Amino acid sequence: MADDALFQFLHNEVIQYVYKSAENGEMENGRCITKLESMGFRVGQGLIERFTKDTARFKDELDIMKFICKDFWTSVFKKQIDNLRTNHQGIYVLQDNKFRLLTQLSAGKQYLEYAPKYLAFTCGLVRGGLSNLGVKSIVTAEVSVMPACKFQVMIQK
Amino acid sequence: MADDALFQFLHNEVIQYVYKSAENGEMENGRCITKLESMGFRVGQGLIERFTKDTARFKDELDIMKFICKDFWTSVFKKQIDNLRTNHQGIYVLQDNKFRLLTQLSAGKQYLEYAPKYLAFTCGLVRGGLSNLGVKSIVTAEVSVMPACKFQVMIQK
Repeated sequence: MADDALFQFLHNEVIQYVYKSAENGEMENGRCITKLESMGFRVGQGLIERFTKDTARFKDELDIMKFICKDFWTSVFKKQIDNLRTNHQGIYVLQDNKFRLLTQLSAGKQYLEYAPKYLAFTCGLVRGGLSNLGVKSIVTAEVSVMPACKFQVMIQK
Repeated sequence: MADDALFQFLHNEVIQYVYKSAENGEMENGRCITKLESMGFRVGQGLIERFTKDTARFKDELDIMKFICKDFWTSVFKKQIDNLRTNHQGIYVLQDNKFRLLTQLSAGKQYLEYAPKYLAFTCGLVRGGLSNLGVKSIVTAEVSVMPACKFQVMIQK
């Protein structure tokens, strides 16, 4: 729990810092999400290397996605993805019904607009992890009711 | 271990990001350390609140410092401070013989100059933690041989 708090607090600081730079005119606001995403990407690359050090070779793409949903997610967010769906044509939807980085936010609808900045880092995290497993992808996130969240992974062939 | 990696990777990203902003002329280089320190300060404030939620009231200043060296340090860095010394006049020296945020760096002398940026966040972390326990302080760090590190805490009356 302590660790988890450390990550959450630092994650919040990073968001604040990136957005504060933008306010000061040092960077356009639109680039903040990209910045957070690319930080997540590099962290994801690093983490997946550690996590897969002693695992068996993955059978296929679905096997990799399952690893992300179970092992990877548990290590980072202390729970598994609640639901994984796919159209078997390269699109995967990972649903987390209680996404940890959103649980500190009030569930009211008026805060929905602030959700994207709390998701950008994690989108990058997934993309970076997949990337180092040889899977190129685009990852986006969507929130309809907090703190539930859907991450959509589109595999790039 | 996984968690720990998450914190380390994110910490590295934060350092890189803060220093990159400086390179682009958005901020003078000298302010980077301050930036990192103040991020650490706020994270330390948050963490200490969680950690002390169920602890007994502290007897005195030394009792607080012992808590920082044992419980706080273990939660964040997975080990205790190896040595705590004090002059009983408000100066404490916390020595960590294998400081986790320096272990990724090569122990060669030529990298000694890069150590300060890996210590600023932690200095803030300690200062923030102490601050929320009602102890105002100045925290500095010193490295002579990596990865050993000494944190000096000067209590402000």
